[in-house]
Amino acid sequence: MELLFTCTSFMTYLFLQLFICHSWIFALFFCNELMNKHKKGKLFSVYLFHQRLFVSQDSGIELGPGLFFADGKRKVDYILCYKNKKRRPSRPRLSVTSNGSIPIPLPMPIPLGGRWDSEAESAEASAPAGDAEESKLSEEEKAMMREEFERGLLDAGLQIERDKEKASGLMFIRLHIPWPILSREAELEKIKVAVKKLLYEEWANYGVMCKYQPVDLIRKYFGEQIGFYFAWLGVYTQLLIPPSVLGIFVFLYGIFTVDDNVPSQETCDNGLNITMCPLCDAVCDYWHLSSVCSQARASYLFDNGATVLFAIFMSLWAALFLEHWKRRQMYLKHSWDLTSMEDEEVFMMCEPESLDVEDHLSGYFINISTLIFLIFVTFSAVFGVAVYRICMLSVWSMNPDPEAKASVRMTVTTTGIILNMLVVLVLEEVYGAIAVWLTEIELPKTTEEFEERLIFKSFFLKSMNAFAPLFYVAFFKGRFAGRPGDYVYIFGDYRMEECAPPGCLIELCIQLSMIMLGKQLIQNNVFEVLIPYVRRPISQRPRQQFDKDFTLEPYEGVSPEYMEMIIQYGFVTLFVASFPLAPAFALLNNVIEIRLDAAKFVTEVRRPDAVRCKDIGIWFNILCGISKFSVITNAFVISFTSEFVPRMMFKFMYSVNGTMSGYTQHSLSYFSVNNFPNGTAPSSSLSTGVTMCRYKDYRDPPWEKDAYTFSKEYWSILAAKLAFVIFFQNLAMFLSMLVAWMVPDVPRSLREQLKKENMMLMEFLTGKKKLNNTHNDTRNTQNNRKRWRNNRKGQHKLTRTENYTK
Amino acid sequence: MELLFTCTSFMTYLFLQLFICHSWIFALFFCNELMNKHKKGKLFSVYLFHQRLFVSQDSGIELGPGLFFADGKRKVDYILCYKNKKRRPSRPRLSVTSNGSIPIPLPMPIPLGGRWDSEAESAEASAPAGDAEESKLSEEEKAMMREEFERGLLDAGLQIERDKEKASGLMFIRLHIPWPILSREAELEKIKVAVKKLLYEEWANYGVMCKYQPVDLIRKYFGEQIGFYFAWLGVYTQLLIPPSVLGIFVFLYGIFTVDDNVPSQETCDNGLNITMCPLCDAVCDYWHLSSVCSQARASYLFDNGATVLFAIFMSLWAALFLEHWKRRQMYLKHSWDLTSMEDEEVFMMCEPESLDVEDHLSGYFINISTLIFLIFVTFSAVFGVAVYRICMLSVWSMNPDPEAKASVRMTVTTTGIILNMLVVLVLEEVYGAIAVWLTEIELPKTTEEFEERLIFKSFFLKSMNAFAPLFYVAFFKGRFAGRPGDYVYIFGDYRMEECAPPGCLIELCIQLSMIMLGKQLIQNNVFEVLIPYVRRPISQRPRQQFDKDFTLEPYEGVSPEYMEMIIQYGFVTLFVASFPLAPAFALLNNVIEIRLDAAKFVTEVRRPDAVRCKDIGIWFNILCGISKFSVITNAFVISFTSEFVPRMMFKFMYSVNGTMSGYTQHSLSYFSVNNFPNGTAPSSSLSTGVTMCRYKDYRDPPWEKDAYTFSKEYWSILAAKLAFVIFFQNLAMFLSMLVAWMVPDVPRSLREQLKKENMMLMEFLTGKKKLNNTHNDTRNTQNNRKRWRNNRKGQHKLTRTENYTK
Repeated sequence: MELLFTCTSFMTYLFLQLFICHSWIFALFFCNELMNKHKKGKLFSVYLFHQRLFVSQDSGIELGPGLFFADGKRKVDYILCYKNKKRRPSRPRLSVTSNGSIPIPLPMPIPLGGRWDSEAESAEASAPAGDAEESKLSEEEKAMMREEFERGLLDAGLQIERDKEKASGLMFIRLHIPWPILSREAELEKIKVAVKKLLYEEWANYGVMCKYQPVDLIRKYFGEQIGFYFAWLGVYTQLLIPPSVLGIFVFLYGIFTVDDNVPSQETCDNGLNITMCPLCDAVCDYWHLSSVCSQARASYLFDNGATVLFAIFMSLWAALFLEHWKRRQMYLKHSWDLTSMEDEEVFMMCEPESLDVEDHLSGYFINISTLIFLIFVTFSAVFGVAVYRICMLSVWSMNPDPEAKASVRMTVTTTGIILNMLVVLVLEEVYGAIAVWLTEIELPKTTEEFEERLIFKSFFLKSMNAFAPLFYVAFFKGRFAGRPGDYVYIFGDYRMEECAPPGCLIELCIQLSMIMLGKQLIQNNVFEVLIPYVRRPISQRPRQQFDKDFTLEPYEGVSPEYMEMIIQYGFVTLFVASFPLAPAFALLNNVIEIRLDAAKFVTEVRRPDAVRCKDIGIWFNILCGISKFSVITNAFVISFTSEFVPRMMFKFMYSVNGTMSGYTQHSLSYFSVNNFPNGTAPSSSLSTGVTMCRYKDYRDPPWEKDAYTFSKEYWSILAAKLAFVIFFQNLAMFLSMLVAWMVPDVPRSLREQLKKENMMLMEFLTGKKKLNNTHNDTRNTQNNRKRWRNNRKGQHKLTRTENYTK
Repeated sequence: MELLFTCTSFMTYLFLQLFICHSWIFALFFCNELMNKHKKGKLFSVYLFHQRLFVSQDSGIELGPGLFFADGKRKVDYILCYKNKKRRPSRPRLSVTSNGSIPIPLPMPIPLGGRWDSEAESAEASAPAGDAEESKLSEEEKAMMREEFERGLLDAGLQIERDKEKASGLMFIRLHIPWPILSREAELEKIKVAVKKLLYEEWANYGVMCKYQPVDLIRKYFGEQIGFYFAWLGVYTQLLIPPSVLGIFVFLYGIFTVDDNVPSQETCDNGLNITMCPLCDAVCDYWHLSSVCSQARASYLFDNGATVLFAIFMSLWAALFLEHWKRRQMYLKHSWDLTSMEDEEVFMMCEPESLDVEDHLSGYFINISTLIFLIFVTFSAVFGVAVYRICMLSVWSMNPDPEAKASVRMTVTTTGIILNMLVVLVLEEVYGAIAVWLTEIELPKTTEEFEERLIFKSFFLKSMNAFAPLFYVAFFKGRFAGRPGDYVYIFGDYRMEECAPPGCLIELCIQLSMIMLGKQLIQNNVFEVLIPYVRRPISQRPRQQFDKDFTLEPYEGVSPEYMEMIIQYGFVTLFVASFPLAPAFALLNNVIEIRLDAAKFVTEVRRPDAVRCKDIGIWFNILCGISKFSVITNAFVISFTSEFVPRMMFKFMYSVNGTMSGYTQHSLSYFSVNNFPNGTAPSSSLSTGVTMCRYKDYRDPPWEKDAYTFSKEYWSILAAKLAFVIFFQNLAMFLSMLVAWMVPDVPRSLREQLKKENMMLMEFLTGKKKLNNTHNDTRNTQNNRKRWRNNRKGQHKLTRTENYTK
């Protein structure tokens, strides 16, 4: 299996890259906390560096140069880097954002509250011109500040090694943090030594769970945030397999049954000789329905009964996916010891912060007006492409050359879709930048809040941008075109565009596949592979590890990666009723994506700070939202874009013999050519003797009392369509809730595990109860604590013997 | 305000009843834990007793007799009670469920794991015939076992005082648990001394929050479970005020605009002279529409435009209520120190336990088949009442007496509703018993699981029972009656019942108000007041407190109270579109209910064991489910039961001048009297020369091609109704989600509070950091712990001085 292969190779790759140190996660986390505070001042660039191992011939594995201090014992935990400013004093690389005075709180004593860190962040965020503003500090002042900063680090117990002084260029300061300091900080941050280390050996036989292992290693090396991203991506990709297979089956079902399908047979049947009304005014001629035979057959591939079942299945799948992820997350949370984080984090991250608008009013106002403006821009873009198609179709139809005329529709559709795709890609980048700007002027208080709002805004803009063309095709295109004799015109004399004769579903299908594939291919290849490759510096002189790492791209967070995947999730679920192959394409993309992302994180960006987080945060809510919304869109696509409901209604209500024969005739209305307004009738018709032409709608024929008004069939089919929407929506919602309720949030094995741990803890604490219950309380507690501590350090002794010795 | 008054009086009442002891909650909880284990064996009845205070003239407050041991110092924490079996050996009151051997684990040593407690529970649950099974143990054996049990208690550190031996009758053993034992057990159960006691004085000025205070006291006295119930009831009742007021306004709006309402004016207009088709075959005559004038006017009171807005408001209200409760719950959880409970509890309670079906298969099978059978029974009951009405109507219509004939419909409707109500009340009790039985045969593993499954089942059965008649009236009654000339008959020649001429909504409204009010009045008065009063024993001889308490009803849990309220919540939300006064009635009921429940808990049942729980558990999920479901039912009630959509469609689509005039004519179809089948035309008509009669439906008139088929108007109105359902459902869902998203789960003040607490803890722990970071790790930790412990005990010293003394 491709997926397994990918995982295995990725795992092997990581194995070679990793030096698994038990204390490493503590070091990462503490350094991260400590460094973040000073990073913002831009006195230094701070980064971790990749631990590359070099396999030498004789001794097996050898550590690369620069991993340790000169004494070869103290490990380098962090790198500070700054540039000596002698050569280019006009443009300092490491600038200080200041308002005249020196805003950086010097770290003496180092404040460990985490409060002013975020304030510095937002202060910086409010001054986005930081780079353009020239630093007012002289080099001497900077050197002094650096010295003072270093003194602060030394006071905090850190150990420093620096390069010998160079006249100019990059200076590196290597930091080592001794073990006691790490332990103390870990205690303050409540990183607990888990009970389950008293259980390690009866657990986890790593050999069998090929796919799960790398996640643990990723988390060890990169921290929880990235670990969660890869875990999520893994679960998502894994769960894409069933819908991919089923989608292919649905497609195959369409291929195998297309010859038995009565409506497309009837469309292709020349004997029926159905004359259709012209597709444009004056210059277009009447045409025969059998000329769109192949398109009708193609349409059936995606518009058959199996699609409806598939859409219901996908709603369930979405619910199942979310539940499965919840379980996996719970499992990871437990095995990564994040359960104790919960209480603080709840109050830091999960609040939408909606009610304190007083001093942010102007920011909010700009926000809302900009968002409204951008919604308008998106719709304009979609409408613009539509206008392009309308005008092009109209102009090219004038072309007297019959060959050009024949290819008009194809050309216009193709260019329209490409144009749409380009617009989507360009606007996506623009919107990303605007979202950052908008969030900055909102003055959020903490990094988490900033992150959350940014994600929310950019998700809103980017998804609107990606999905608007699809919504247009699915629900608006051709709905307002009017009828023969009473068409709707825009800009004077351009007729509103209609869908191609076999229906809008096939257009939606093409549009979806093109945007989805185009977006993935271009973004993956251009943005994630090509551009980093071009930007990579050419100099290849031998350097130390920390020197090399400095040239890599800085890490930008996992948000863009999530964003890309979540929009793909949108493509997979929102319109799956029109394109059952979407999951298969997504699966294909993701198998490559995991590889690319992994390569990117390991080789192309600086090693990211390990960020602790207890789950995937706001992304889960967004996934839930998309899943709920997808139920509604799929209901409407099946009802209003596909022809499922009219066909069913015909079969069970209007058909004489209960079969589909006669459906094509039934679905076309009559138009008397005498009713054409002046100048709109075909000027030079090849067909002679046409008195009636047909068009696709349910309207009363010209000979009835209410000619050309919606017929009884129209209203009954409309009612059926709406009833189907209600039925589908509530069924899917109910089944999703059932799935969510049936699947326990906590996996069975984990529950057993937790029970066992609790039992052991209980037994241990109560072991000595009955012997010394006459001792006083304080002593009991002390004994208890002492024994507990001993136990934690692995020096487990029989409690009974200890009690007898007293 | 009535509510405030209730709260205040209740508070005062409780104040007099309470002896507020700081250690009390520990005592309650530990005793509860310890006692629960032995209670099941039925050797003793175990209970807490009410602490009643007696206000004497001179010394203010004096403790009642029996609160302390004979030495007047040691407080009585628990009572054990058993009956000496000399008089009636044939039927022992305190039986032991046994299978021949002695199944009770003797408490030497007392196991404190909490595991076999639940096993004993389920073992007992599987032997429901415990009372019928005669005990095989002789009195001597029992006495021995009791002695051994008491020895176990003494060994565990408890202190015992017993009455002097009596020959027969009730024996009381009073238990006192010394403070050290309590503290140790509290530590084992992780009841933490909260940080916020370091914050007490800057907090909580009790004076202003009248409503919130009693909840804290209730919790102190009764434990968290009952505390949560009253808190929830308080929030619910408080939040019922706005919809009550608004509902009354909607009703008043109906009253004030009824005279301007065109449809009811037209109905009352004699000049239109509309002849309606007869309501029954042969014996009924044609009738004039104006004869139902008053009913049409009454119907308008509940079926006007404001109702739709009110229904949307109620969806939002439900969402707001849930969010508000979440906040309150979070607040209570914090102030009652329940945050640390979370981790264990999650894995004990919140799992639906769906996948281990292997050894419970037969239980599940019986369950499912019984549930299906009971669903069938419920629907049969509803259908039975409908059949009663149909037959009665048909038989009484034969009555030649014109006066009797006139009152037929009224009599049948009234008796039908009363019958319905009685059936609902009887079945509710039956279903409660069946639910217990069903849960017992399912063999759930723990008490929590038992409780949860029982709640789920009895909620399912009872709510189905309560709401089925309403669903029948709202969505089925009159839908399958047919049309003149083609009526639907059951049992040969009984016509299916139709709604009264002004529509089904008014019937739904009456049915709802009757069931809701009747249920509340009868249940409150009969079950909660009358029956306990009757059962109360007559003997009034002076006794000690623990003796009196024994005669009270045993406590049965808060589930029945919740159930009652949640079904009321269902009445308030599910069909609020038909009866805007429902919230007002509910409010009125609840104001009394709080008083009744309070009185019941304090005076009429034994003091309940304090049960710790972190929230209201499964009830919250049930509330969420009802709220979601109510959106759908209200959408359908407005669309299909009320005449809102047809009126709007007429106004905006069919009306000539955009007003409602002509609506009544438009909504009635024509029937030619020539088309009556043989024997169904009125046999002796008073009206002469009738050729056409009218009936309420949208069908083509006799003179059209497709006579009596559904007309174009029918289908377009049906489409509009369905569209309205989709619109309403999605709007309400979206707004609810918006509300849930806008309202942060954690109240702002609590967040500030938590931040402050964390800050203080942080500052305290890091205070000595920079002075002794060269000391070794273990010593740091020890100092830290020591200081922390000192601090907890309130002997806070300056850390700096302590450091200098070393």
